[in-house]
Amino acid sequence: MDTLINQLKRVAPTATLVMALAAGTVLQSCNSTGGNAKDGAVDADAAKAVYVAPGQHDELYSFLSGGFNGQVSVYGIPSGRLLKVIPVFTQFAENGYGYNEETKPMLMTSHGFVPWDDLHHPKLSRTDGMADGKFLYVNGNNTPRVAKVDLTTFETVEIMEIPNSAGNHCSPYPTNNNEYILAGTRFSVPLDLEKGGIADESLVDYKDKFRGSISFIKTNEDDGHMELDFQILVPGFDYDLANGGKGPSNDWVFFTTYNTEKAGTLKELGASQNDRDYLAAVNWKLAAKYAAEGKTHEMPANYYHNTLDHGSHQAKSTVKKSVRYLLPEECPGMMYLIPAPKSPHGIDVDPTGEYMVVNGKLASSLPVFSFSKMQKAIENKEFDGEVNGIPVFKYESVLHAEVKEPGLGPLHTEFDGKGFAYSTMFVSSEVVKWSLEDFQVKDRMDVYYSPGHLMIPGGDTKDPYGKYMVVMNKITKDRYLPTGPELLHSAQLIDISGDKMKMLLDFPTLAEPHYAQAIRADLVAPNSVKFYKLDQNTHPEAVKNEKDVSVTRAGRKVKVNMTSIRSHFTPDNIEGIQVGDTVIFHVTNLEQDWDVPHGFAIMGANNAETLIMPGATQSLRWVPKQAGIYPFYCTDFCSALHQEMQGYVRVSPRGSNVPIKFSTGEKKPVPPATASVD
Amino acid sequence: MDTLINQLKRVAPTATLVMALAAGTVLQSCNSTGGNAKDGAVDADAAKAVYVAPGQHDELYSFLSGGFNGQVSVYGIPSGRLLKVIPVFTQFAENGYGYNEETKPMLMTSHGFVPWDDLHHPKLSRTDGMADGKFLYVNGNNTPRVAKVDLTTFETVEIMEIPNSAGNHCSPYPTNNNEYILAGTRFSVPLDLEKGGIADESLVDYKDKFRGSISFIKTNEDDGHMELDFQILVPGFDYDLANGGKGPSNDWVFFTTYNTEKAGTLKELGASQNDRDYLAAVNWKLAAKYAAEGKTHEMPANYYHNTLDHGSHQAKSTVKKSVRYLLPEECPGMMYLIPAPKSPHGIDVDPTGEYMVVNGKLASSLPVFSFSKMQKAIENKEFDGEVNGIPVFKYESVLHAEVKEPGLGPLHTEFDGKGFAYSTMFVSSEVVKWSLEDFQVKDRMDVYYSPGHLMIPGGDTKDPYGKYMVVMNKITKDRYLPTGPELLHSAQLIDISGDKMKMLLDFPTLAEPHYAQAIRADLVAPNSVKFYKLDQNTHPEAVKNEKDVSVTRAGRKVKVNMTSIRSHFTPDNIEGIQVGDTVIFHVTNLEQDWDVPHGFAIMGANNAETLIMPGATQSLRWVPKQAGIYPFYCTDFCSALHQEMQGYVRVSPRGSNVPIKFSTGEKKPVPPATASVD
Repeated sequence: MDTLINQLKRVAPTATLVMALAAGTVLQSCNSTGGNAKDGAVDADAAKAVYVAPGQHDELYSFLSGGFNGQVSVYGIPSGRLLKVIPVFTQFAENGYGYNEETKPMLMTSHGFVPWDDLHHPKLSRTDGMADGKFLYVNGNNTPRVAKVDLTTFETVEIMEIPNSAGNHCSPYPTNNNEYILAGTRFSVPLDLEKGGIADESLVDYKDKFRGSISFIKTNEDDGHMELDFQILVPGFDYDLANGGKGPSNDWVFFTTYNTEKAGTLKELGASQNDRDYLAAVNWKLAAKYAAEGKTHEMPANYYHNTLDHGSHQAKSTVKKSVRYLLPEECPGMMYLIPAPKSPHGIDVDPTGEYMVVNGKLASSLPVFSFSKMQKAIENKEFDGEVNGIPVFKYESVLHAEVKEPGLGPLHTEFDGKGFAYSTMFVSSEVVKWSLEDFQVKDRMDVYYSPGHLMIPGGDTKDPYGKYMVVMNKITKDRYLPTGPELLHSAQLIDISGDKMKMLLDFPTLAEPHYAQAIRADLVAPNSVKFYKLDQNTHPEAVKNEKDVSVTRAGRKVKVNMTSIRSHFTPDNIEGIQVGDTVIFHVTNLEQDWDVPHGFAIMGANNAETLIMPGATQSLRWVPKQAGIYPFYCTDFCSALHQEMQGYVRVSPRGSNVPIKFSTGEKKPVPPATASVD
Repeated sequence: MDTLINQLKRVAPTATLVMALAAGTVLQSCNSTGGNAKDGAVDADAAKAVYVAPGQHDELYSFLSGGFNGQVSVYGIPSGRLLKVIPVFTQFAENGYGYNEETKPMLMTSHGFVPWDDLHHPKLSRTDGMADGKFLYVNGNNTPRVAKVDLTTFETVEIMEIPNSAGNHCSPYPTNNNEYILAGTRFSVPLDLEKGGIADESLVDYKDKFRGSISFIKTNEDDGHMELDFQILVPGFDYDLANGGKGPSNDWVFFTTYNTEKAGTLKELGASQNDRDYLAAVNWKLAAKYAAEGKTHEMPANYYHNTLDHGSHQAKSTVKKSVRYLLPEECPGMMYLIPAPKSPHGIDVDPTGEYMVVNGKLASSLPVFSFSKMQKAIENKEFDGEVNGIPVFKYESVLHAEVKEPGLGPLHTEFDGKGFAYSTMFVSSEVVKWSLEDFQVKDRMDVYYSPGHLMIPGGDTKDPYGKYMVVMNKITKDRYLPTGPELLHSAQLIDISGDKMKMLLDFPTLAEPHYAQAIRADLVAPNSVKFYKLDQNTHPEAVKNEKDVSVTRAGRKVKVNMTSIRSHFTPDNIEGIQVGDTVIFHVTNLEQDWDVPHGFAIMGANNAETLIMPGATQSLRWVPKQAGIYPFYCTDFCSALHQEMQGYVRVSPRGSNVPIKFSTGEKKPVPPATASVD
């Protein structure tokens, strides 16, 4: 493999490479029979390094995005064990997320109920530039959204739709004290500034009428609550990735752009014409100042903001009807463009905040730009024209150094805090370590195969935890026992504590992780909520005592307010339901202990189950279609008598005179405690 | 902990235990700060034993049921790494299962579309009593169904609904040459033998009118295709678990029953009154003979049978309208009842086929019944009355031995093929090894916490692979870094190759595994399909060449027949769609290489993405609600130019005169190749 790559490195002009890449023909190395075996001694070291003995805990939480599964996967490091799947943008039948009445509003958008998204970038909330373990922000790429996960409960508690965006990919980027979460569009679209929203324009008018947006979401210091403060409308490029400054560059955020050619079709060629695209530099603090000073315009909009209330565990949607925006041409000093190698992917800023590394996936070198040079270039107006009123720097004025021949297809870079950077090479399937002092390559390691993101815990902050690196590979092929045509993706854990990288572990990863972040366990674990306090349950349909349960009919709606506790439901005998009734079961779990959820499921429901955590109330909608007896039961093994934890609902034909009755442990059901008919 | 348990073992009468269990108050031991640490030397051994070096493969596939997630999780053993999630009864937005047009029919039932189930028991198909690696059968517990997973593709290819059942728990049990898959009801229900289906009866009539069923699903030797041959209608007990004979007992299957009291409410007490329930013994071969000889009755029914065609990858549903049934009282010799300790859970037959172990969860001893004694008792009519015409054996006539004081709360037993059995103790949180020779306890090991099922690869066959054991624990609590109130469940891998069990590894497991099966990798891996052959794709909407793509309107329906290949869609510019149109995207992946899926997603769809394997066609339904430009893109990183793999759909207002146009790589879209209007 090395020979082929080196040959290619020497001979392939970029144009040839582009064509080869477009056709997908270039080189995946391929272990024939599980290769890469190491001798026993080395294995034993690696084995011990990743082994977390039964009863011991991992050193780090890592949050891997699930990509096209719309979820976040929490893996322990160094064990590589999957500790939890957090549903965010995607329905999750396992616990009822997106199926039960409480969480359905979380998935509402201006397009209606959207039960899926493509979740790319997990970013931990920050205090003083360091991950604080409070929240995890993630983006929905397909139907533009930003979500917030509460790390005390590991639940999605807020989802904000982003208007005037399509493909919310360079998102979310939290500033160093969580002042703002920034979210950039990937695809530009035509905007209707008068009526609001995306316009119905011919696709042949792409060049003239399409434009992008960068959204500024303000967060509340206490609870991380998000509000869309304003947007910047930017040129009609494609925007790929974002990362922010720190230290001297604290006020700046950088976005890679591609398709500055503004091709509206066959972008694999159309967007690869120009030799250079841009790195967009945005002074977010100045933008916020301009917005505060009234430089914004306002346009109609239509977007959803969904929040989950902690006390009731109910989500609600608010629809917002306008959005403010800034135009770069009206806001001097707010935005600049840096010429960058064509179609760049990742942009990564080193821990000092001085260097901006642009990962030009089609380039043969990695350019490292200098923030201080950029400041000087602004001062001295070292520009080379402008685009839509945005000044373009001279390349040489802001370039600090180039890492020569780092490998083929650089996508992302992270930092170890010890003066080194690590970059993934998608095409040559390797990770390359290079120095931030002399910009020379110091080490390289084959990875399997085609790495995209890589992650060093805190590797994008001012103080990385430079012990481990996780490389997320796009191609899995022969790395594990085969599972048919569809394979999980794969991560590799590498020890970066020494001069040379040491491969420790391969572990499969759910769906496709696009980036990950990790944090020391002691910053999250002590705050983990074990159960919800029943006396603080503010759900309007909660029942806190078995004697208060009820089954009430109002027209064709029947409300069942019931309880679960080891090992019975109250009531467990219900009669008087009729075919076609809309029945809502509001189940309160009376337990007050850790790890005693009860599940609730009823036969034939066109719905999921719902899993009810101790102290919480969850509600399931059911419309029976046939008369008969329908058992329901606890789906989560809760005690030695779990199999006995069940009940029955009798459904009679429409118009039947069987009255509403409910009971537990009685031979004959009693009349309802309360009943009203509307 | 030991002291408390031993005290309880000595003093607790069963009645007290029942009450304690019902209240869920009994004893979970609890590591305070990650306890269980071992000295360095032991750790290193265990670490090496479970370490599968990068590039190496696991020794075994293990298929863990997902319980309330409706999926199967495939873990590698000994690494404990999650290799794959197979969606079965539950929508899976990650790849579009249950969301795309091809797979929606898989989740159809007589109750309509049911997007979830509770999947309990994975059972590998068998040839000559041994797992043959062809298929995996699993049950849906809530809306009774049995599914078949094809182990060449790891896809769910068939789902059979089970009529006259509620809570399909003691299911599926494949006989030793896959002649039948047996499926027993958990909850009895009133059946309407005249009109068919479950009847609308008062719950107070439980004792008189409710009954159970055991279904006999015949399978085709070549492709495992299932047909519901007949059912046996059985007494109105609850039926818990099933397992079959082997060797001399090859023709028999055994079912544990509980609630022989026929309590219809508060079963935790009501079903724990009698000192003994029953183990039901069914001669399945004789039952099949009776059915073939015309002993069956027929009744109306309404159940779905869904199959996925291999060539087209399209599922279709067939609705069946009648079912045949046998009555035990009319079929002498077909069914017997063995008195068993109250409310038994697992029934497990040893590798020789001679011993039937009944795991009486509330009993203080494990009874081991003898098949040869049972045969003699039949011969000598050693009965103690009958139930619904089914003879009940005298306990002593069929009992071989009792394992005394094995632990508290025995749930399941498996065998190592070396003369030992291993039983889980739910309440005392331990696994107990005992001898099939002298029925004495030989070893015991604490597990964390509350084990349910355990699994030795092949542990329910005539020839177990007695090297590893996986114990599936119900309570996780402090075993891993905390993740809020909701935790994954947990498995423990134990080395059982020596005299004493050795704990190797804790690994978290998705949702709640109820049983697992494992198989040597070489029986599955060589047959794994890597991609689908494009020239064998029989999907009626497949497009095998980019020049044949089309966008056609028929009334308000628009069909887009398109292709994907690195790194573009054809077409990638589509105009002429109107608000409210039903658009179906039929996307064919033209790739012919392993691990190059393309994904397809479009902004705002009230749907998932769909992931298209090489050579296959998948279809996504979309109804745009607003005019505007909608980007679509490939969701699975496929090449260095993946970010450029996207396109646009223009949606105009209803009644607009924008014509249908589509193109790729052209400045101006061309008129459609074909178009028809109905």
